[in-house]
Amino acid sequence: MLHPKPRDERVDKAQFEAGIKLGALFHQFVGTPVGFENVEILERAMESCVKLQPYVEEVKVKIDRVKLREKLSAFGYTSLSPDMLHAEVVVKVGKRRVRAVLRWDERLKYPIMEIR
Amino acid sequence: MLHPKPRDERVDKAQFEAGIKLGALFHQFVGTPVGFENVEILERAMESCVKLQPYVEEVKVKIDRVKLREKLSAFGYTSLSPDMLHAEVVVKVGKRRVRAVLRWDERLKYPIMEIR
Amino acid sequence: MLHPKPRDERVDKAQFEAGIKLGALFHQFVGTPVGFENVEILERAMESCVKLQPYVEEVKVKIDRVKLREKLSAFGYTSLSPDMLHAEVVVKVGKRRVRAVLRWDERLKYPIMEIR
Amino acid sequence: MLHPKPRDERVDKAQFEAGIKLGALFHQFVGTPVGFENVEILERAMESCVKLQPYVEEVKVKIDRVKLREKLSAFGYTSLSPDMLHAEVVVKVGKRRVRAVLRWDERLKYPIMEIR
Repeated sequence: MLHPKPRDERVDKAQFEAGIKLGALFHQFVGTPVGFENVEILERAMESCVKLQPYVEEVKVKIDRVKLREKLSAFGYTSLSPDMLHAEVVVKVGKRRVRAVLRWDERLKYPIMEIR
Repeated sequence: MLHPKPRDERVDKAQFEAGIKLGALFHQFVGTPVGFENVEILERAMESCVKLQPYVEEVKVKIDRVKLREKLSAFGYTSLSPDMLHAEVVVKVGKRRVRAVLRWDERLKYPIMEIR
Repeated sequence: MLHPKPRDERVDKAQFEAGIKLGALFHQFVGTPVGFENVEILERAMESCVKLQPYVEEVKVKIDRVKLREKLSAFGYTSLSPDMLHAEVVVKVGKRRVRAVLRWDERLKYPIMEIR
Repeated sequence: MLHPKPRDERVDKAQFEAGIKLGALFHQFVGTPVGFENVEILERAMESCVKLQPYVEEVKVKIDRVKLREKLSAFGYTSLSPDMLHAEVVVKVGKRRVRAVLRWDERLKYPIMEIR
């Protein structure tokens, strides 16, 4: 009988690290003042924060302009909310690479985080 | 001709301090996971954080249960959002006391902060 | 020739979910006002926020009282800092369970997050 | 007998608004990943968030590079901490203008916020 193959710990660690990055991004920045004047610099700053972290190869943050427009207050800006935040991060540990996504699911009313 | 009365600096400082407390509360806690299981402990913890700060006499934090119910995700909780957060703080500097309120204004789509 | 065993996706997902929880906890709460008056309610509130999240079986948050004392300001409180925050979370996805820890590493000057 | 002059409400409101801005800035961004690679974009993004808010005329955010260097982890970055954050904001309500400052006081171990 075959012994089960040992799990590849580097895969697991890559998944763990990817989870850390998305959880961190969401909870650091939700609530931040955002409008059309600063949406781009905010996206780039958020990406810059993820890139600093260990094992990160790539990151893309996108704030939904349609949602942003809908949510603008009478003062021309709003607070960054979960339903306007989209992010992708690629993490590499050893030779293993995982891509994780943060996206709003309107039906579940929830910011889904998942491995792609 | 009368000289203008000097402004009472303690009034101004009380207003400044009240502003700090509301700005801090909002931006520290928006995004926090909240559901019916932890809404009360979260309110009390938020109040405990405000009470630590200089010049605070009283504080009351209230998370809107109706809004909370509306926003619950398929997983039974949501993130604390500006439209469900209400707070009042009383700050005293010297003998001057000000009461400031944080409340959601649905028409302005904005978390109004004001002196009462 | 043997085909490689497929990786157990549930293990990976458990690791991913564990990472999310620790990243979220750290970035939501670092900066929160904390002193000896509210350290316990803050720990319990932080735990309550993690417990709401999918797949969480257990969570323990501990704020280091020695570090807290060292960091207290002249006003008797401070802001929650990475070096005083310790947390453990147990996440279960299907039949697989992982335990993850957040702890300060003084030598690395870094809040290590790791699977135990 | 002279009646006391009514307090100038616009002065008070300017102070209140200045307090909001500093409290918000501190609590939104403390904990953010920061290193020499992203310190400038983070400063500009933080300023952009303050500028969006009502009554703000000017804002300057400065992260202390000496403190940043001291605090860098073995991974080449750290979390934004209160002792490395300096900010100035000018708020104007009606014709009244106030300048408020956030600065770390090493002796008090406290992020002082004050009107200048």
